[in-house]
Amino acid sequence: MVNQTSGVLYGLGVGPGDPELLTLKAVRLLNECAVVAYPAPEIGTGLAWEIAKPHLSANPEVLPLRLPISVDPFPAQQAYDDATESLATRLASGKSVAVLCEGDPLFYGSFMYLLERLSGSFRIEVVPGVSSPMACAAVLGRPLVARNEPLTVLPGPLSEAELESRLQAPGVFVLMKVGRHFTKLRDLLNRCDLAEQARYVEHATRPDQRVLPLDEVDPETVPYFSMILVRRV
Amino acid sequence: MVNQTSGVLYGLGVGPGDPELLTLKAVRLLNECAVVAYPAPEIGTGLAWEIAKPHLSANPEVLPLRLPISVDPFPAQQAYDDATESLATRLASGKSVAVLCEGDPLFYGSFMYLLERLSGSFRIEVVPGVSSPMACAAVLGRPLVARNEPLTVLPGPLSEAELESRLQAPGVFVLMKVGRHFTKLRDLLNRCDLAEQARYVEHATRPDQRVLPLDEVDPETVPYFSMILVRRV
Repeated sequence: MVNQTSGVLYGLGVGPGDPELLTLKAVRLLNECAVVAYPAPEIGTGLAWEIAKPHLSANPEVLPLRLPISVDPFPAQQAYDDATESLATRLASGKSVAVLCEGDPLFYGSFMYLLERLSGSFRIEVVPGVSSPMACAAVLGRPLVARNEPLTVLPGPLSEAELESRLQAPGVFVLMKVGRHFTKLRDLLNRCDLAEQARYVEHATRPDQRVLPLDEVDPETVPYFSMILVRRV
Repeated sequence: MVNQTSGVLYGLGVGPGDPELLTLKAVRLLNECAVVAYPAPEIGTGLAWEIAKPHLSANPEVLPLRLPISVDPFPAQQAYDDATESLATRLASGKSVAVLCEGDPLFYGSFMYLLERLSGSFRIEVVPGVSSPMACAAVLGRPLVARNEPLTVLPGPLSEAELESRLQAPGVFVLMKVGRHFTKLRDLLNRCDLAEQARYVEHATRPDQRVLPLDEVDPETVPYFSMILVRRV
């Protein structure tokens, strides 16, 4: 049963990278919660914290959660169980907790593994954020989808066969989580005659943002936070 | 050729409905531009203006653009040509113009018709906004897409045959622009055995927000700004 005297767990979307793309609601809750948690890599602080930090004027407990973000298969259960316990302790003591999430919390976000573990016991609210496909379209200065075009979003780790079959459909494609799948995706788009209409975008809206045609991308340098947008026309 | 001494045209995503879901960047530009334009229905002020208005503290020229938003086929050329001329006059005189856009400007947004008309002549910047599929997932408290699930976004005006063929694919579906296509979509989801996993969301994040299973929706009352989210599992 959901405990009404405990704190509230907020999943805060912090947007794609530019700290100015936080919503007013995310900034408010960031500064109202007693605890601010964020997914952190083994070393360093992680993107979500970097994006939100300039807006923090309160003095909350800051809680890095050591969560894997880019591994297949999903997810590393033990890390999520440990994070859940850390959060549950604070929530049960009446403290509200903001968990910072790159982009939007529910669009391929690791927040959902915390949501499924904690939703039976605590009040949870998700604050949607600006998501990377929209940020990439803005960076490219072209429509993401127009009129009655379908949009298909495909994670890069999918099998070649599944990707190839989906790429036959009409409309616009967004290939997410490109990272180490870049070569597979580039070759596939070449085979489907879609490579010329594709644009690679890395770290959209960050100072180190890059936009490239596929044949200019060095596959060795492709980060997890990159995507390929394919627009016929 | 793009005129560098003229004003800048900003497409400002104002998010799905809750005024607190504007980004900091949208609020700043709203108050820095000499002109604030917004799509307006024949009567009344329209959603984008309602969302942004509470944040306006400057005193810009306010310019309603009489643009059709929900008509098939797209778009009403003359209305867009007229709006383009209004904006071009102001930009050419050195004034920057913010055009308010519900959700995200490039995700099925009418801003793209202005973008294509003005991009050769003026500097244009798009500020991405929180988009309705992410807002709906937040309202439902469930993942939009998780792990390596594909996401397919389908506009309701598509033909029954095309929709039915796309609904055979794996993953999550978002049906946009439901409005007067509700009955067609509901019957189709029933036939594809997907109706039970579907949720109807109307005016997400607004005070009049509604979430319903499909069989409780009165087709006569379905607005343009509604969607159906289909998540197996």
